[in-house]
Amino acid sequence: MDTVPQRLWIAMENRDWRAVRDLLHPDFRAEWPQSGETFDRESFLDVNRRYPGDWHISVQQVVDAGEWVVTEIEVSLDGESQPAVSFFRLRGAQIIALREWWPEPFAVPDWRRTP
Amino acid sequence: MDTVPQRLWIAMENRDWRAVRDLLHPDFRAEWPQSGETFDRESFLDVNRRYPGDWHISVQQVVDAGEWVVTEIEVSLDGESQPAVSFFRLRGAQIIALREWWPEPFAVPDWRRTP
Repeated sequence: MDTVPQRLWIAMENRDWRAVRDLLHPDFRAEWPQSGETFDRESFLDVNRRYPGDWHISVQQVVDAGEWVVTEIEVSLDGESQPAVSFFRLRGAQIIALREWWPEPFAVPDWRRTP
Repeated sequence: MDTVPQRLWIAMENRDWRAVRDLLHPDFRAEWPQSGETFDRESFLDVNRRYPGDWHISVQQVVDAGEWVVTEIEVSLDGESQPAVSFFRLRGAQIIALREWWPEPFAVPDWRRTP
């Protein structure tokens, strides 16, 4: 059976905002530490609804530890692929907290470049 | 009791390379997808031994799902703090695979900036 985060990604992919909302606890808080942005349930719905471009989500990995679930996804957006790593904390059948990381490509530094 | 990845971080922090090596399976493979770099046991030891600067590791979160363990750490390096998210796959008391993400800060884009 899909975990609650997997159901969230399906609902997001389907732009089924009612289903997304039902999976979020009323006290839900999300955090994007790289930009310092934080969201509650309504502002998280809002930012995802307004996110520009034709984005699609593909789940790569789910690590299910019960109260905590971590997912790796690839978000394709106008032909580009962007990974995201999401730490979900669950309360019952809803998500109470989410901390999400958006890693960008980087160049291999000179000191560890193989000749 | 500490998970195998927590013991790895302690051994790394202590620069105890013999202990690090003992925690890695002979068939260990590591992947930094952002740069496309991959490592086996020896090259992973080598890159960490040679990593420049006076780095220190602080474990922020451990999500333990048995065969898979995910950690969030903060690496402090010459006064700067860099998060890393690591997906460990275990085989017995050793790490057989590691995929690691190094997210960087980003600016809030205009479209979601609060006035």
